[in-house]
Amino acid sequence: MLSQITLEDIRPIAIGAGILGTGGGGNPYLGGLHLASIIRELGPQSMLDPFALQDDALVCVAGNIGAPTVSIEKLPEGTEMLRALRLLEEHIGRAFDAVAIAEIGGANSMQPVIAGLLAGIPTVDSDSMGRAFPEIQMSSFLFDGGVTVAPYAMVDAADNAAVVPQAVSDLWGEKIARNIAVSMGARAGLVSTIMTGAQLKATGVHYTMTLAHHLGCQVLAAQREKSDVPEAVANVLDGQVIFHGKISDVDRRVSKGFARGGVRIDSFSGADRLAIEFQNEFLIAFINGEVAVTTPDLICIVTEEEGEPVTTELLRYGTRVAVIAVPAPPQLKTGVALEVVGPGAFGYDVEFRPLPGGVIGLASSL
Amino acid sequence: MLSQITLEDIRPIAIGAGILGTGGGGNPYLGGLHLASIIRELGPQSMLDPFALQDDALVCVAGNIGAPTVSIEKLPEGTEMLRALRLLEEHIGRAFDAVAIAEIGGANSMQPVIAGLLAGIPTVDSDSMGRAFPEIQMSSFLFDGGVTVAPYAMVDAADNAAVVPQAVSDLWGEKIARNIAVSMGARAGLVSTIMTGAQLKATGVHYTMTLAHHLGCQVLAAQREKSDVPEAVANVLDGQVIFHGKISDVDRRVSKGFARGGVRIDSFSGADRLAIEFQNEFLIAFINGEVAVTTPDLICIVTEEEGEPVTTELLRYGTRVAVIAVPAPPQLKTGVALEVVGPGAFGYDVEFRPLPGGVIGLASSL
Repeated sequence: MLSQITLEDIRPIAIGAGILGTGGGGNPYLGGLHLASIIRELGPQSMLDPFALQDDALVCVAGNIGAPTVSIEKLPEGTEMLRALRLLEEHIGRAFDAVAIAEIGGANSMQPVIAGLLAGIPTVDSDSMGRAFPEIQMSSFLFDGGVTVAPYAMVDAADNAAVVPQAVSDLWGEKIARNIAVSMGARAGLVSTIMTGAQLKATGVHYTMTLAHHLGCQVLAAQREKSDVPEAVANVLDGQVIFHGKISDVDRRVSKGFARGGVRIDSFSGADRLAIEFQNEFLIAFINGEVAVTTPDLICIVTEEEGEPVTTELLRYGTRVAVIAVPAPPQLKTGVALEVVGPGAFGYDVEFRPLPGGVIGLASSL
Repeated sequence: MLSQITLEDIRPIAIGAGILGTGGGGNPYLGGLHLASIIRELGPQSMLDPFALQDDALVCVAGNIGAPTVSIEKLPEGTEMLRALRLLEEHIGRAFDAVAIAEIGGANSMQPVIAGLLAGIPTVDSDSMGRAFPEIQMSSFLFDGGVTVAPYAMVDAADNAAVVPQAVSDLWGEKIARNIAVSMGARAGLVSTIMTGAQLKATGVHYTMTLAHHLGCQVLAAQREKSDVPEAVANVLDGQVIFHGKISDVDRRVSKGFARGGVRIDSFSGADRLAIEFQNEFLIAFINGEVAVTTPDLICIVTEEEGEPVTTELLRYGTRVAVIAVPAPPQLKTGVALEVVGPGAFGYDVEFRPLPGGVIGLASSL
C-alpha cells in the first residue's frame, strides 16, 4: 500500500485515476498540477490504511462536483477543499480525523489528498466507487443506509458557500447540490458523507489510490518498453480490450451541471462501430448496435499508442483509441447498489450482465 | 398603525397586498388561508412599529422564494418559515427578536406574520420594497451596503434544508438561492437579511402592512358602496388608473424558478392596447407601443368591477381589468436603488421616468 504521496507519485496516479475515471472525475492533468503545487509547499501527504482507522474516528469525503468540461476552463482558486471541510466542521462542531476519497476517478482522486494536506489530516486509501460516477448518491458509503450524504458543505472559487444540513434522501441531496453547483459555475468543492472509521471500513472500496498508482506505473513501464499499453491496462485491472479504432463522432454538451453526450468509434478497418453514451462518465457501450458493457462495469478509453486516459472533455474527432471493459468492484454489484448505479438508474432499460472477475477494491497487496 | 393581525384583518390584507404585489409575491388567497389557520390556533399576531425596535434588536426577514405559478399547485407544509428561521438562528448562534417583511406583495406579506406567530416574536410593520420584486437582492434593506442577504436559510415542504453562510454579493446570493429553490420544486421558505433594529429603521419601507390593510378596507368599502373600485385603489395609493380593457393574450411560462411572460389587454372599444411584461411581477407597461410605466413604479392589475388583485398566476383570457400605475416608495428611486430595481436591471434599455407623488412607506398615520 502507498504510505504517502510525493511529487513523483502524481504522474502515475493521474494516469491510473484517469483510466479508472471512465471518462469523468475531472481532468487528471490539471488535478495533478494543483496537487503538485501543494506538495511542493507542504511536503508529501500521508495515506492511511482504512483498517488503521479507529472505529470511532470521524471521516469526511471530499471532491469536486460539476461538469468535467467546465473544469478545464474554470480553474480552481485552490483552497476550495479546505474551505468546504472547515465549513462542515464548523457546522457540526467537530473536527475530522481523516478524509476519504469520493471517487478514485480523474482529478477527484487528488482532491482528498489536497484536502488532507491543507487540513493537516491523513487521506484514507479508500473510495466509494472504485471508478467515477456522475452523482453523489452513487457511493458505496451510502448503500447500507447507515451514512447519508448530508450534512454537506460546498464552496466555489469566489468564496460563495452553502451548507445543506439535511436532505430527505441522498438523491434529493444530489439534486440540491447539483443546482448549487450550477449556481457556482458548474464547478464547486464539496465535502460530505460524514462517517465513522467503522462505517468506512465496512462500506469503502479500499486501496484504490494504491491501485491507481500501480496502474499508472504499469502504463509508464509499458510505454518505456514500447509494449502494448492498452493490453497492460486490461491486465492490471482484470479487464479486456474490447475495441480498437478512431473517434468518428463526438456529441457533447453541458446540461444541468453535467457533461452529457455520446462518442462513436469506428474500427480501423471500418467494419465495426462502437458507440458510448456518457453523463460525465461513460455509461454504456454498444458494439454494432448490441450492448457490450454497462455501468457499473467500467468503460475506459485510452489512446491506442500510449495508453493514456481519454476523459470525456478530451474526446476529439480522429483520436486513435482502445476501449477497455473492466469488472466493477463487488460493492457496486449488490441488488441495492445496482438500483443506484445500474443501467436502470441512468434510464437504460437494459439488464446488467456483469463482466467476470475483477480486482478493484481487493488489491491490498499491491 | 395596525397593532395586531386578527382573523378579520386577513381579507383586507390579502386584497391590499395582492394589489401592492404588482402581480407577484405569491397567491394572496392561499396565503390568507394559511395565516387564518395559524391565527385560529395561536391567536392574533403582534405588529411592531419599526421605531419601537431597540437599535440593537436582531431582526431577520422571512418569505417564500419561487415562482407564483407553482405556489398555487404546490401547497406549503406549513412550518417552512419557522424551520428556516430556527435553522438560521442555529447557524448564527443567536435568537431573533423580531421578523420583518421581505415584500409586502401577495402571500409574502403574510409569511412574516406566520413566522413571527410560530416563533413567538413580533412582526415589524416594515418591508423592503413597498411592493414585490422577483429577486432577493432587490431589497431596500441592502441598498446602503450595511446589510447582506447572506447568511440565509432555506427549507422546503419535504424537510430538505440549506444554509448559505456567505455569498460574494447579494446578486450571487440570489443566484444560489434561486437554484436551491428550483431543486426544492420552485417553492421554498427563505429567512435571510439579518440586521439590527437601527439598520431596519434607516432602510425599511415602513408601515406597509398598515397600508395594505387600509387599502383592502377601502376596496371592500367601495365594493359595498358599488362605487368605482379601481378609482378608489388609485386614490389610496396616490396613483392613477391608466387603462380599462379585456385580457386578450397571456404568455406565461415557468423558467429557471420564475414565472415569466407577458399579457396583452385590449381596450373595450378595441382602439387601444396595453402590453405588460413580467418576471413574477409586472415590470413594464406599454400603451400602443409606447412605454407608459416601468419598474420600480408599480403596475397593478385589478378586476374592473370588484377591484380585486389579478396576480400573474391568475391572468386569464377574457378577464375585464383596470390597470393602475402607482408611484414607488422613495427608497426605490435613489441612484443606487435604480441600478438594482430600475428598468435596466431587468434588461430594458429604457429610462425610468418616475410617476409624481406617492404615499408608500410614508403612511404612518393610517
